[in-house]
Amino acid sequence: MFFASDNAGPVHPQVMQALVDANHGYAMPYGADPWMEEVRTRLRDIFEAPDAAIYLIATGTGANALALATLCDPFQTVFCSEVAHIHEDECNAPEFYTGGAKLTLIRSGDKITPEALEAAILKEGSRGVHGPQRGPVALTQVTERGSVYTVTELTALASIAKSYDLPVHLDGARFANALVTLNASPADMTWRAGVDAVSFGGTKNGLMGVEAVIFFDPSKAWEFELRRKRGAHLFSKHRYLSAQMAGYLKDDLWLTLARQANETCAYLADGLRAAGADFLYPPQANMIFASLSRAVHKRLHEAGAVYYLWSGELDGADPDEPLTARFVCDWSLTRDEVDKFLSHTN
Amino acid sequence: MFFASDNAGPVHPQVMQALVDANHGYAMPYGADPWMEEVRTRLRDIFEAPDAAIYLIATGTGANALALATLCDPFQTVFCSEVAHIHEDECNAPEFYTGGAKLTLIRSGDKITPEALEAAILKEGSRGVHGPQRGPVALTQVTERGSVYTVTELTALASIAKSYDLPVHLDGARFANALVTLNASPADMTWRAGVDAVSFGGTKNGLMGVEAVIFFDPSKAWEFELRRKRGAHLFSKHRYLSAQMAGYLKDDLWLTLARQANETCAYLADGLRAAGADFLYPPQANMIFASLSRAVHKRLHEAGAVYYLWSGELDGADPDEPLTARFVCDWSLTRDEVDKFLSHTN
Amino acid sequence: MFFASDNAGPVHPQVMQALVDANHGYAMPYGADPWMEEVRTRLRDIFEAPDAAIYLIATGTGANALALATLCDPFQTVFCSEVAHIHEDECNAPEFYTGGAKLTLIRSGDKITPEALEAAILKEGSRGVHGPQRGPVALTQVTERGSVYTVTELTALASIAKSYDLPVHLDGARFANALVTLNASPADMTWRAGVDAVSFGGTKNGLMGVEAVIFFDPSKAWEFELRRKRGAHLFSKHRYLSAQMAGYLKDDLWLTLARQANETCAYLADGLRAAGADFLYPPQANMIFASLSRAVHKRLHEAGAVYYLWSGELDGADPDEPLTARFVCDWSLTRDEVDKFLSHTN
Amino acid sequence: MFFASDNAGPVHPQVMQALVDANHGYAMPYGADPWMEEVRTRLRDIFEAPDAAIYLIATGTGANALALATLCDPFQTVFCSEVAHIHEDECNAPEFYTGGAKLTLIRSGDKITPEALEAAILKEGSRGVHGPQRGPVALTQVTERGSVYTVTELTALASIAKSYDLPVHLDGARFANALVTLNASPADMTWRAGVDAVSFGGTKNGLMGVEAVIFFDPSKAWEFELRRKRGAHLFSKHRYLSAQMAGYLKDDLWLTLARQANETCAYLADGLRAAGADFLYPPQANMIFASLSRAVHKRLHEAGAVYYLWSGELDGADPDEPLTARFVCDWSLTRDEVDKFLSHTN
Repeated sequence: MFFASDNAGPVHPQVMQALVDANHGYAMPYGADPWMEEVRTRLRDIFEAPDAAIYLIATGTGANALALATLCDPFQTVFCSEVAHIHEDECNAPEFYTGGAKLTLIRSGDKITPEALEAAILKEGSRGVHGPQRGPVALTQVTERGSVYTVTELTALASIAKSYDLPVHLDGARFANALVTLNASPADMTWRAGVDAVSFGGTKNGLMGVEAVIFFDPSKAWEFELRRKRGAHLFSKHRYLSAQMAGYLKDDLWLTLARQANETCAYLADGLRAAGADFLYPPQANMIFASLSRAVHKRLHEAGAVYYLWSGELDGADPDEPLTARFVCDWSLTRDEVDKFLSHTN
Repeated sequence: MFFASDNAGPVHPQVMQALVDANHGYAMPYGADPWMEEVRTRLRDIFEAPDAAIYLIATGTGANALALATLCDPFQTVFCSEVAHIHEDECNAPEFYTGGAKLTLIRSGDKITPEALEAAILKEGSRGVHGPQRGPVALTQVTERGSVYTVTELTALASIAKSYDLPVHLDGARFANALVTLNASPADMTWRAGVDAVSFGGTKNGLMGVEAVIFFDPSKAWEFELRRKRGAHLFSKHRYLSAQMAGYLKDDLWLTLARQANETCAYLADGLRAAGADFLYPPQANMIFASLSRAVHKRLHEAGAVYYLWSGELDGADPDEPLTARFVCDWSLTRDEVDKFLSHTN
Repeated sequence: MFFASDNAGPVHPQVMQALVDANHGYAMPYGADPWMEEVRTRLRDIFEAPDAAIYLIATGTGANALALATLCDPFQTVFCSEVAHIHEDECNAPEFYTGGAKLTLIRSGDKITPEALEAAILKEGSRGVHGPQRGPVALTQVTERGSVYTVTELTALASIAKSYDLPVHLDGARFANALVTLNASPADMTWRAGVDAVSFGGTKNGLMGVEAVIFFDPSKAWEFELRRKRGAHLFSKHRYLSAQMAGYLKDDLWLTLARQANETCAYLADGLRAAGADFLYPPQANMIFASLSRAVHKRLHEAGAVYYLWSGELDGADPDEPLTARFVCDWSLTRDEVDKFLSHTN
Repeated sequence: MFFASDNAGPVHPQVMQALVDANHGYAMPYGADPWMEEVRTRLRDIFEAPDAAIYLIATGTGANALALATLCDPFQTVFCSEVAHIHEDECNAPEFYTGGAKLTLIRSGDKITPEALEAAILKEGSRGVHGPQRGPVALTQVTERGSVYTVTELTALASIAKSYDLPVHLDGARFANALVTLNASPADMTWRAGVDAVSFGGTKNGLMGVEAVIFFDPSKAWEFELRRKRGAHLFSKHRYLSAQMAGYLKDDLWLTLARQANETCAYLADGLRAAGADFLYPPQANMIFASLSRAVHKRLHEAGAVYYLWSGELDGADPDEPLTARFVCDWSLTRDEVDKFLSHTN
């Protein structure tokens, strides 16, 4: 009954097999391996972007920070949500990698709204040389609260960014989960909507630790490569990143796993709803925030369920007080586990 | 016939098996997995250092840069060899991670000599607030030219560092190869000699991509953890780093593999010597620099041997001109391959 | 009729005379001049802090950024007001000097309240290694909105900081103006209240360009000196900074000038109030935010008055719409100028 | 008898008068003052560069570090002499401002030779993504050893830089002294020779603390402005920088003062030569390195002469041992002082 995150599950067997299969003889290091060539071809095909520059990074924070550093000067500011992973959960990695750029937090709740984005851009641009200059717009899809921007919403945000000549980065740690929800094409959810660079997640969806960074305009590719090396994120035995990603893309495993996770989460949400839970946001992908009474939480904890309370304290007097918790379902979570979990909610 | 580097070979089967064995169910992320607990216990035992703080980093550059950043203020300078990996092959990663510290290059050839180290320290300390301040002494063992410092030599260098209150870092990308050469204990080659922090390599010796960073004095452990996260080198699915390292340490595999590599290299060196080669430095571990005539190099290249020329150009008029090349033997290299290689030298 | 800022007025004649008087022969560079010795003695006396470490910096941004960098690790966050100069008007200088630390913005209006400070500290401390660590609390006195913290308020804020072991920095660009308002002692407004380091402004109050940075605990003095040099803020002909500051402190000129500025501002505020103006905050020192009708603003602009509109646009249809403006009075502003200005408001 | 440096003398009366003259009423801050307009016009005229972007910085280290940061990416290396001020005397300021770029030291003695420059460039460019990338070539004129590059030498060095597409920066802390020596035009010694940006010194030649940074190609002007602000080197009361520089340029005072300093130094060199001194390099501008016997040095010190010993120790047994010292003559040094000094050498 593990719902704490989708970063703690196992590697999918098809990916592990890809690693085993790649483990023979010598392979040219630093990304010159044949599996990387395969990954590039496949991702360019998937994204309908034959010129895209594509790199692999072992951590999501690395993918985000390096992509942003390539798009952002140190005297600029990145526009992002106040709950963005890059702000809350990366221990100043974006500031470090950009050389001291700022993050301008947009406070419009779960998703950034066009109005809030434009207001933030206007405000940051009003002080000439004294204030930080406007830099990239950073979006997260699936958002940190489990919501999914529609393609229309992404397009609206990116078009505001474009009207101020600002690049757009998409943190797609749960890219596949969002895509499955929207039933959109990768191109529609990225460059056709106006996204310039994307962190295409794999770690949360069945890999050991690999994300792709994709620049649709390859003009900054070499700069990115140098920043990756300087950041110590260029792997010598790179084939083991490439092989993972190749295994992930093969036969659309990435979509299959995301669909599994989303369906499991929908099943969980249905069960929680039946048990009287309220949701902070409508369940859309593989992460939900639901409130249950303290008494139910206590039962769940005693039964061994693992997840994070988002508000309130487990210890407290009132057994009926509703406490919100975050529940994340990864691809490996079974309906049996969910059923077992739900059995404790009644 | 691959002699280009020890960073291009496969993962040892025992390590791959450890990964497969660890690939079940959920594991707490970010280093809270049970394999990491095992690694910590084992390495503390190996190093006879029960208080040591131990971390895993996926790249050698990351291990070095993060360790140095923890030991070095941005207004200081790191003393290192002019051929140090941290200077030549990390694309300014040490400067990046330290926030702009300098590297003071010591020009005493393959190894740093005590005299050269002290002269460099004295020179950098002569300008008060105007010059960079003295910072860590960074040594590499096995050196970038294939030599191995004796324990006595390490002790002499570290004791000079200590006399100026400077910390000592050891880049042990080939730690095991040096240890096997010296037949020393890990403690003798590190903290007993005066080393404060070590990058304990695994990637070049049979792992997929893992190095341990060991601080014998744990007082800076928390700072290191924050710098690791900020540098985007903290893995969520950390168990796959831990399991590799655990598999590497089990039954002294790390020593077995290093011994294999060193023995293969000695065998190669013997063969090259018999073929008339000269060596830049006496062969000691698993990397040698040997000169052969252009004609021999041409034959080797035509036969498919892969290695780096260190001086001169393959294309050239004089077939007898000696050209120096670097040959590295990894654990997976077979005597058959060496025999095949040597057959082309005659 | 210049009310745009207190950073555009002339140097006080007594200060200019001090420069002329110091302009003879050679003087030891980099702060080893006798005027600096005088400044140190005088400021330690003024602050009743015989051990304080004292440095001069030519710009206020430099004073703030260097002081914060000395107090803040790069993986930490600085707690400050959402309208803090360090956030809005220093083009990422604090992020640059700290090596990429974050600024956590506190949204409690003009002044930081104890409740808001504690809430911010608690929130930033909830994510372990993943979020930025808690760093210094940065206060501004006079605030960027013209208000003055009482000694009691400062003490309350600093005591919260202390309860979390966080250092406190005070941006005193208008230190003297606040002191005059409070009729407090420098010690009461700083270290006795719990402030660890202060930027003691001079530029806005009659100097050419000098601020003192004062550390009440001198243990980080040498680090500050190195950071100052590294930031290129150590002057060779330092005597011209020292002489300015010495001239400023002599016969309490600094207090006299602040008193003048505050009194002129109070006189302006009275006149504006009589003309029907509303104030964003009660006038306290030498900077006020007052709203006047668009028609009045237009008359003032036509008459040549210089100041910044804080909300709204001068061009607009409704002549009666109130528009808020910022008015700053420096020491050199005369009552005649204020009278002339006020004559256009009726 | 002060020969320690040209950074310790007084401000020339004409410059001080310019400050006094500028000290009336309000002036727009941050470089929007009329004196700056005058400076820009005058320097563009002097350099025959009507499009040049021109900025004032209060310290030479600031001028150099900001100019280099504008020309250099953080993953690059700056080519400079092993005795360059930016390497030896700026406490890592170039590394700080560039965000961690490296300095590649060229060891060809006093001046960089074309051969040594090209060898360094070739070597740094041989490691692909692993090594630092080639960045700006940084020259110093007058060199740190008192020599002056001829226009032909500068052109040769810059043309090598150009052949690798590298920008050229000239640290002209003693620009005027070199110009007087060469009897060249500012354009010939800079952009016509291939220099892209120059730090045009004033502080060592009669100013309080002002250097101009000149970019002959203004395309990076805005970036420089942002870096200046971010580095806390933008002065609010900027008129006091502008007025100094305007006073310095008026009636060619800058050339007059440099000529004075050079002539005094030549007079000193003649006297020393007559006293049997040897010179490290032929005296050319206002700084010389001469060896005198220990006995003479002792007499000079007892008589109160101030200068730096460059080799050896004043205390020592052998009175005849020659010890090299650095002697710098600033514009304010009189022949009487030199005569007095020389009287002790016989």
